[in-house]
Amino acid sequence: MPATPRTHVIGAGLIGASIGLGLRAAGWDVTIADAAAEAERLAWGIGAGDPLGHEAPELVIVAVRPSATGEVVAEALERWPGAWVTDVASVKAPVLEAARAAGGSARYVGSHPMAGREVSGGLAAQSDLFSARPWVVCAGDAAEEVVETVRSVARTLESDLVEMDASAHDAAVARVSHAPQVVASAAAAALGPLGADDVALAGQGLRDVTRIAGSPPAMWADIARMNHAALVATLDHIIGDLEDVREADDIGEALTDLIARGNLEVERIPGKHGGKTREWRGVTVIVPDEPGQLVRLLQDAASVGANVEDLSIEHSPRQPVGLTTLFVEPASAPPLVEALERAGWTVAAS
Amino acid sequence: MPATPRTHVIGAGLIGASIGLGLRAAGWDVTIADAAAEAERLAWGIGAGDPLGHEAPELVIVAVRPSATGEVVAEALERWPGAWVTDVASVKAPVLEAARAAGGSARYVGSHPMAGREVSGGLAAQSDLFSARPWVVCAGDAAEEVVETVRSVARTLESDLVEMDASAHDAAVARVSHAPQVVASAAAAALGPLGADDVALAGQGLRDVTRIAGSPPAMWADIARMNHAALVATLDHIIGDLEDVREADDIGEALTDLIARGNLEVERIPGKHGGKTREWRGVTVIVPDEPGQLVRLLQDAASVGANVEDLSIEHSPRQPVGLTTLFVEPASAPPLVEALERAGWTVAAS
Repeated sequence: MPATPRTHVIGAGLIGASIGLGLRAAGWDVTIADAAAEAERLAWGIGAGDPLGHEAPELVIVAVRPSATGEVVAEALERWPGAWVTDVASVKAPVLEAARAAGGSARYVGSHPMAGREVSGGLAAQSDLFSARPWVVCAGDAAEEVVETVRSVARTLESDLVEMDASAHDAAVARVSHAPQVVASAAAAALGPLGADDVALAGQGLRDVTRIAGSPPAMWADIARMNHAALVATLDHIIGDLEDVREADDIGEALTDLIARGNLEVERIPGKHGGKTREWRGVTVIVPDEPGQLVRLLQDAASVGANVEDLSIEHSPRQPVGLTTLFVEPASAPPLVEALERAGWTVAAS
Repeated sequence: MPATPRTHVIGAGLIGASIGLGLRAAGWDVTIADAAAEAERLAWGIGAGDPLGHEAPELVIVAVRPSATGEVVAEALERWPGAWVTDVASVKAPVLEAARAAGGSARYVGSHPMAGREVSGGLAAQSDLFSARPWVVCAGDAAEEVVETVRSVARTLESDLVEMDASAHDAAVARVSHAPQVVASAAAAALGPLGADDVALAGQGLRDVTRIAGSPPAMWADIARMNHAALVATLDHIIGDLEDVREADDIGEALTDLIARGNLEVERIPGKHGGKTREWRGVTVIVPDEPGQLVRLLQDAASVGANVEDLSIEHSPRQPVGLTTLFVEPASAPPLVEALERAGWTVAAS
C-alpha cells in the first residue's frame, strides 16, 4: 500500500467531506460518494473528492450515520476485496462485529474522530476539522500494515492519535460522552415545572451543566441504540448514586459523600496539555458590555505577561455588565490583579 | 427607620464581610461580629464593620452557615425587639418558619444574594461581590417598610433585585441550582471505573457538565438538609427520566424524547440581558497556545465591529493549540469569518 493510498469516502456529511478536504489538501487521491445526489454533488463541488471511477479504491472510509455504518462497512469489504476499510462511527464494537460477520475483519480498522458537531452537513466541512482533536483507532483483528494506514489518515489530518480496544472505547465514551448527554438533558428537562421568573435565577452552574442539552436529538438515538449495554451500565451507576442521596436517612451526609467522590474524578479530567484545569487560578473582573472592552481587558492582562489559559464570561440576565474570569497560572494571579486594578478594572474575586 | 439604618452583620465569612464592606463604602454605619474571634478581628481589620457597641442595631443581617441561620435569626429577633432582621441563607422557607416560631416574622425578611462561592472566608471579601448578581428578597409576613429596607440593602450593593415567595424560591433553586450540583457530581463519580487513558477522551461537553462537580462538599450538606423536600422532588423527576431511557424498549426513541424536552427548557435559561444564548452564532478558530494570541484574535474581531457576546476556549489534552469559539450576533458572523481568515486565522467552524 502506498503512503497515500487511493481513498474513497462514503458519506458526504460534515465528517466525510471534511476528511476528503483534509486528505486532498495533503495531496491524497480522494473520491467521495453519498446516497443523496445533492450532497454528493456538493462534495465534488467544494473539492472534497472526485466521483468514483472504475479503479477500485485501496482505502475506504465509511462516514455514514452510525446506525448504517455496520452494513455499509460490510458492503465495502465485499465490493472491494483488495481494499482496507475504516469508519468514523462513535460506537465501535458493533461495527467490528459487522466486519467479522462479513468475513473481512482482517481488512477493517475502526476510527472515531472526536470532532465537534455544533453544525452538520457537507457545507460546513473544513479541511482542519480534526486538527488537535482526539482520533481513536481500534485495531481489532487487522494486520499491522492496515492499522498503520489508518493511523496515517489521522496523522495527515493532524489529529491527536489514541489507540484503544473497541469495547473499551465504547465503555469509555458511554461515561465521558453519552451518559453526560443524557444527564444534561434530564437536568434541563427538570426545569419544566418552573415559571420564567424562577428559571431566571439560573447561574453559570446551570448553564454549564445544561449546555449540551441544547444538542439536536437526531444522532443520539443511533448512538444510544448502538452503545445500549455500556450506556445502561453507566445510567445504572448514576441512578444508583442519585437514589442513595434521595433515600438517605441523612441527605447531607449522602450528598457530601457523592460530591467528595465527584471531586476526585473531576481532577482526573484533562484540561490543557494533559494538565488539570484546577491548577489555574481565576481572576474575576466586572466588564461593561460594550464593544472592545474584552480586548482592552486582555491587553491589560498581557501587559504584565499573564498568559490567559482559559476565560469564562458570565452574563447577568438584567444588567449591562458581565463578570469575566481570566484563568492564569497561580503565580501570575497576584501581579495580574494589581495590574488590572491599576488600569481601572474592578476585580470582583481572585 | 432612616435611609441608612444602623446595621449589624452577624457572621464575618465571605458573604457577611462583603456585605459589611459594601454598605460601609456607601456610607452606612455597620458593625460586625463572628463567633470565631479570629474571623471577627479580621473583619474589623479590613473595614467590614466596627465592634458592636451598646446602641441596639436597627437592621440585623445574619450571614452564618445555612444550618445555623434559623436559630441565629430567632435569637436576633429576641435580643433586639426594635430591630428588623434579614439573612442570606440559600434556602428560605425554614428560616421564615424559625422567625414565625420566635414570634418575630413581622420584623423578618429573607434574602438570598446569589454570589459566586469559588472562594470563601472574610479574607476574600469584596465590596462589590454582589454587583450585577441576583439578590432574592422573600417578604414573608413582614410589613412593607421592613421589606423596603431590605430592598435598599440589595440596591446599595448594586444587586439585581428579585422578589419571590420563600417556598417558590426553594422549589426554584432546587431545580436551577441544588439538583444540577447533585447530577454533575453523579456524572463525575460515574468516571470512577475508567482508566486515565479512557478519561483522556473527555471533550468540552464532559468538562462543562462536571465543572461544578469540583465544588467543595461542605456547604451542600446544609443546603440539602434544609431544602430536603424540594431537592428530593427534583431528583425524583430526574431519576424518573433516566429510568425511562434506561428501561425503554427502544432506547433511541426514549432518548430522542428526553433530549427534545431538554432542548425546550434550555431555550428558557436566560443568557445575556434576559435573551437567549442560542441567538448567538459561534465562530471557532484554531489559536496557538502563546501569550497574546487571544488578544490578537479579539482585536481582529473588533476591527470589523463584531461585539463578542461570549467566548469559550477548548484545550486539547495533547496539543499546543486550542479551539476558541467567539459567539456573536448571527448577522456579524459572516463578516467576522471573512475578516479573521483575511487576518490569517484558521476558522474551523462557523
